[in-house]
Amino acid sequence: MARVVVDVMLKPEILDPQGKAVAQALPRLGYDGIAAVRQGKRFELDVEGEVTEDRFSHVRGATETLLSNPVIEDFTVRVEEA
Amino acid sequence: MARVVVDVMLKPEILDPQGKAVAQALPRLGYDGIAAVRQGKRFELDVEGEVTEDRFSHVRGATETLLSNPVIEDFTVRVEEA
Amino acid sequence: MARVVVDVMLKPEILDPQGKAVAQALPRLGYDGIAAVRQGKRFELDVEGEVTEDRFSHVRGATETLLSNPVIEDFTVRVEEA
Amino acid sequence: MARVVVDVMLKPEILDPQGKAVAQALPRLGYDGIAAVRQGKRFELDVEGEVTEDRFSHVRGATETLLSNPVIEDFTVRVEEA
Repeated sequence: MARVVVDVMLKPEILDPQGKAVAQALPRLGYDGIAAVRQGKRFELDVEGEVTEDRFSHVRGATETLLSNPVIEDFTVRVEEA
Repeated sequence: MARVVVDVMLKPEILDPQGKAVAQALPRLGYDGIAAVRQGKRFELDVEGEVTEDRFSHVRGATETLLSNPVIEDFTVRVEEA
Repeated sequence: MARVVVDVMLKPEILDPQGKAVAQALPRLGYDGIAAVRQGKRFELDVEGEVTEDRFSHVRGATETLLSNPVIEDFTVRVEEA
Repeated sequence: MARVVVDVMLKPEILDPQGKAVAQALPRLGYDGIAAVRQGKRFELDVEGEVTEDRFSHVRGATETLLSNPVIEDFTVRVEEA
């Protein structure tokens, strides 16, 4: 069993209110020096067998269709070493 | 400016319906061989200056207070190389 | 076509860091008088035909299985008038 | 103390992969007759005192700034009767 990780973040030009809320809240709790925060999604997929090139491009396809909206979000897919 | 990444996932023993929905949907779209999916949150923090040990433990504190609920979620904090 | 709305909120005794971040950020942006914020999920389901009692209890079942984690979340299901 | 509810949904023309995943998963679990699902956010705000017109437009402002991205999301704000 291998682990594939998909990170999905709003594109940099798309305003992220959730991240902004966190960034604004941090100084009030005494946490300074954090200039900006962006909040996105992380998916961990357990893939059966080895992650062949074929399987990897499968996961890329699934990410484009079901895990992200490519119009407003960027994503990265990577195999996580065990 | 340095980048710190915080990953927040539900603890393994806590059912994750969102991840389950994705896992159930994948075969219908022709994506087989994915045994399980977990959905979590990813935060990207832009930190001013260098990420000293002090600053790093600052971000850990902020994560425990404002980015995650340690009762139901696990998190990792790491500095991302530029 | 009828519309069913499912609201899913963390149980009151479960800390909600996202809502807390928003509550902490509001005064900094000049919004006072908001004592607490909780963030949850809202699902809008388009149901074919009429929402019979049977169909409604179907949606309740789907909510328990796929839209929420009843251990940590509460939910409500209601038909929205057109 | 009054309760104000803010619902935030992606605009209809913006693809919602999370909702799509749920819609695709439902039939596999035996739930038929649900044509489409959209997933959004629900915020519950506890407001001190009465929700005057002033306070209400305050919450509207906060929603536009901190709870939603008006470019990609629609929102509604309403006072919930106790």
